[in-house]
Amino acid sequence: MSNSDIEIEMGDNFVPKFNEDGLIMAISQDIDTNQILMVAYMNEEALKLTIETRKAVFYSRSRQKLWRKGEQSGHYQKVREILVDCDQDALLLRVNVDQGQCHVGYQSCFYRRVNPDNSKKLDFVADKVYDPSDAYEGNL
Amino acid sequence: MSNSDIEIEMGDNFVPKFNEDGLIMAISQDIDTNQILMVAYMNEEALKLTIETRKAVFYSRSRQKLWRKGEQSGHYQKVREILVDCDQDALLLRVNVDQGQCHVGYQSCFYRRVNPDNSKKLDFVADKVYDPSDAYEGNL
Repeated sequence: MSNSDIEIEMGDNFVPKFNEDGLIMAISQDIDTNQILMVAYMNEEALKLTIETRKAVFYSRSRQKLWRKGEQSGHYQKVREILVDCDQDALLLRVNVDQGQCHVGYQSCFYRRVNPDNSKKLDFVADKVYDPSDAYEGNL
Repeated sequence: MSNSDIEIEMGDNFVPKFNEDGLIMAISQDIDTNQILMVAYMNEEALKLTIETRKAVFYSRSRQKLWRKGEQSGHYQKVREILVDCDQDALLLRVNVDQGQCHVGYQSCFYRRVNPDNSKKLDFVADKVYDPSDAYEGNL
C-alpha cells in the first residue's frame, strides 16, 4: 500500500473520493431502526449542502441536477451523522425520517427479496406506507 | 414512466441493472445487528456465484477479477437473503458473519464519522476487532 492509501484508510482527514463522474455513493440508514432506506449519489455540492443543512441532498443522475430529498414529497432525511468507509468512496448517512422514503410508496427502497427457490423472481417483503400519488401529484 | 420502468419497480421479475462496466453495487448488512458492514460491486458472475453458494462473491475493480470474500482471510459472509432496490441497480445482502469484515481490522468498513464541528476531519467511532496482519499475512 502507498502512503496515500494508508492515510486515506487510517487517517483522520475526510477526503471523499468522487468517481470519474464526480459522484460518490451515499447509503441512507434509519438511525433508530438501522433499516437501510435507499442508496443514491452525491456530487461535491450535494455533500457540502448536506453537511451544512443537515438534510440529505443528492445528485440525480437521470435529471442531472441536485436532488433536495423531500423538497417535492416532504419526505426529508434529517442527517444525524455521516460515516465514510475505509477507502472513502462510500458514505453512510444515519438519518431520522418521518415518512416513507421510497418514491414507490414503501418505507425503504429495498422492498423485494430474491426468491430463494427461483432466483429470477422477487418476493415483496414490505407493505406500502403512503400513496405516492399524494406525495408527487402524479409527477412520477 | 414507461411500462418497462413500472415493471422494474413494481414487478416480481429480478432484472438487476448492471452499469456500463457490467457492475452492480452490493451493500452487506449484518442480519442480526443490522450494522452496515461494507459496500462493494458484483458482476453477473459474482452475483450468480453468490446466489448459488450463499457466500458473498464480489468483483474487485482494482484487481479486475472475482473476489471470493473470505477466501484469504477466512472472513466469509453467509448470505441469508438478497434484497434489490426499486430501480434494481443496488443489492442489499443480509448476511451472517463470524469475524470483522473490513480489511483494516474493523467489524465494519464504516469506522469513521465526519466531525460535526469540522467537516474536513474524521472521528474514529469503532475499535479494531482483529489484527489484519494475521488475516492477510502482510499482503495488504
